[in-house]
Amino acid sequence: MVQKFKEHVAAAMPFLNGKKLLLACSGGLDSVVLAHLCKALKFDFALAHCNFSLRGTESDGDEDFVRELASTFEIDVYVKQFDTEQYAEEQRLSVQMAARELRYKWFDELLQSKRYDYVLTAHHADDSLETFLINLSRGTGIEGLSGIPQVNGNVVRPLLPFSRNEIIEYAKSESIQWREDSSNASVKYLRNKIRHEIVPGIKELNPTFLQNFQHTQHHLRQINDLVNNHLNELKSKLFQQRKDKVQIKIAELQKLQPLDAYLYGLFNGYGFSEWSDVKDLLAAESGKQVFSKTHRLIKDRQSLILAKIERKESEAFEIHSDKAIDELPIKISLEDVETFEKQGQNVVFLDKEKLNFPLVLRNWKKGDYFYPFGMKGKKKLSKFFKDEKMDLISKEKQWLLCSGDDIVWIVGRRADERFKVDGSTMKILKITQFP
Amino acid sequence: MVQKFKEHVAAAMPFLNGKKLLLACSGGLDSVVLAHLCKALKFDFALAHCNFSLRGTESDGDEDFVRELASTFEIDVYVKQFDTEQYAEEQRLSVQMAARELRYKWFDELLQSKRYDYVLTAHHADDSLETFLINLSRGTGIEGLSGIPQVNGNVVRPLLPFSRNEIIEYAKSESIQWREDSSNASVKYLRNKIRHEIVPGIKELNPTFLQNFQHTQHHLRQINDLVNNHLNELKSKLFQQRKDKVQIKIAELQKLQPLDAYLYGLFNGYGFSEWSDVKDLLAAESGKQVFSKTHRLIKDRQSLILAKIERKESEAFEIHSDKAIDELPIKISLEDVETFEKQGQNVVFLDKEKLNFPLVLRNWKKGDYFYPFGMKGKKKLSKFFKDEKMDLISKEKQWLLCSGDDIVWIVGRRADERFKVDGSTMKILKITQFP
Repeated sequence: MVQKFKEHVAAAMPFLNGKKLLLACSGGLDSVVLAHLCKALKFDFALAHCNFSLRGTESDGDEDFVRELASTFEIDVYVKQFDTEQYAEEQRLSVQMAARELRYKWFDELLQSKRYDYVLTAHHADDSLETFLINLSRGTGIEGLSGIPQVNGNVVRPLLPFSRNEIIEYAKSESIQWREDSSNASVKYLRNKIRHEIVPGIKELNPTFLQNFQHTQHHLRQINDLVNNHLNELKSKLFQQRKDKVQIKIAELQKLQPLDAYLYGLFNGYGFSEWSDVKDLLAAESGKQVFSKTHRLIKDRQSLILAKIERKESEAFEIHSDKAIDELPIKISLEDVETFEKQGQNVVFLDKEKLNFPLVLRNWKKGDYFYPFGMKGKKKLSKFFKDEKMDLISKEKQWLLCSGDDIVWIVGRRADERFKVDGSTMKILKITQFP
Repeated sequence: MVQKFKEHVAAAMPFLNGKKLLLACSGGLDSVVLAHLCKALKFDFALAHCNFSLRGTESDGDEDFVRELASTFEIDVYVKQFDTEQYAEEQRLSVQMAARELRYKWFDELLQSKRYDYVLTAHHADDSLETFLINLSRGTGIEGLSGIPQVNGNVVRPLLPFSRNEIIEYAKSESIQWREDSSNASVKYLRNKIRHEIVPGIKELNPTFLQNFQHTQHHLRQINDLVNNHLNELKSKLFQQRKDKVQIKIAELQKLQPLDAYLYGLFNGYGFSEWSDVKDLLAAESGKQVFSKTHRLIKDRQSLILAKIERKESEAFEIHSDKAIDELPIKISLEDVETFEKQGQNVVFLDKEKLNFPLVLRNWKKGDYFYPFGMKGKKKLSKFFKDEKMDLISKEKQWLLCSGDDIVWIVGRRADERFKVDGSTMKILKITQFP
């Protein structure tokens, strides 16, 4: 068995010889067998272990195990702890996707800083089949069925042609120890069901099922390459660069059949996901927009305009109580008054003595919070914007009137509790926003 | 349940109303339910039943059942018997593929001659899933995973979104009778294994598995459309029409990545299947050819030439013993001799009195046979050619020397036993072929 593995790697990945390799090692069966294989091949390799801190002491046990393995092999080991859940929340990713991003980001850093040539991961044929079936059960496209290639840039997967059983055999024949992996429970449930209840039957359909499956995935990846070539040709024809924007003639898009698939193919790289909105845009009135996290598509007469959403440096304007305020980006007036009426959307009454002049008018920034008028306690602006169902552009356009660091008024939307007029107020300032 | 089916057809296939429909009816559960559904929808339809003669009396029982059904419904029924096994052998197809070809060919004839608008078939969601898994087990490309669309030209599949269980429920709720289908045993084995052992588990992975699966197949078909658009654009750029041939610059082909996938995509429509041969052709010496059943690809200096294989009408030349034979397409001499030597590849000795003049020199035609020299009994020429490993072009170029209908000599290869010189021979004719 060991011989078979060695021969495959020697034949399929001769370029690994003499290179500096970084082996992603969880401590589980697959990556530990891969480590032993690299040792048997006399490769120049180190271990890299991600501690995602998702399973408490169990995670730490895995880390110890990998450190121990490296020490036995007398090779380097890199370990990094991640706060996966926080990152997932911040980036609005699933925990799995977050772990994946963190992992590959760190590997890239290590490749660069420590001058490694390749990252080796221990994916095998059953992983591919299980992922295929998971994606199939959820509904997927060609990418979800195509699987991962054995060599993808500087990421290499030496075990990809081998089945889990072959890897277990390898481990047994060499009396290799490993850590039982108990990752994300819900994923594990689905994967385990597939592994134990579906895959054995499927493999029985054909004695060479796993090989055939690999050929199928290879074909699908090639088909995907063809599609990408096609879409890139199409983009270079249809996407006309205009300074920092791209203009696309709608009439040209309309010629494409099947339109849905083309719209998806042309724009999914820009983060769009609401396909019916994108499609509707073709027939919408001029000025209508659709947003992704990073881009916007604007209907502009006979064209669509694709533009990056600029996260421009926030501008800030000072407002002196006694100065003309013509140069402001919005039209507001400040007025000392004797009495106050009810706050309105475009009018606020403030306790002037609680304010520090000059006031500042600025856009929102991450971490902003305020004390909503009429409520107890503070609220993050991001939460407020979400509750108000504001889109990205509206959020960026939103002006905040501030006293020092404190938000006084979310202009045109909500005043702050801290600056309200109360029984002890001596001077009332009325601020009005004009359309 | 009936209502659900009716609503789907009404909503998804409004174009069927008022049209003349031909329902492909095997007598099995699916097509019988479809017949009842058409009846419930008050469609104008007839039944078409193929008797593939593959299961003896059982096939005939199915036929009777379908005739009976049509008579109950008071609608027309068309029945045709096919000799599937013979057709499969003739066309070198699997029995399944042969049945499929025969069936759709006949439907097309009926559509034309009887002026029907659409053929309805009873494929359902489980059929698609089973076919997907069968193809997956064997290894496949995107076509093998994409499934069939609900409407494809004039073939419509009203039951495609429904599961087998829903169809059974329909049958039960209406007390519908059907014939149990026992088709091709080996296929049935695989399909049954998939149906009973794999599919139930797979469906449990996700409560909406079948719907998701249909979306996946829809995406794959769209991707396939994109690929075909891409390949057609490429063909119109690279394939230069030269009278009855197509010229393709090899340098242009070499630019394509992934090359394998492009060669497959560009040439598989012309029947080629030996992809390594096609690929090797790019670097082969000028004059080298690769053949499919219908086409040949010729390396011609910096280009590939794609040409149809012409099955030209066989030419025939008469050979009179006493006449100059300069006008023949090959160079042969006839000579009366006293003694005979051993037959050679290019020399034969014949009993002149057994021959009928003028002899005829012609190409081979289907059904040709001869009595190989030195052997007992006759042999089909097709068999002889195959044993000689002759390619299509060589077969077409092969000249046969004939006496009346009888083959005397497969020129340059093998003489016929019937015309050999023996003890009673009075006149010996020596025929020599010159290069």
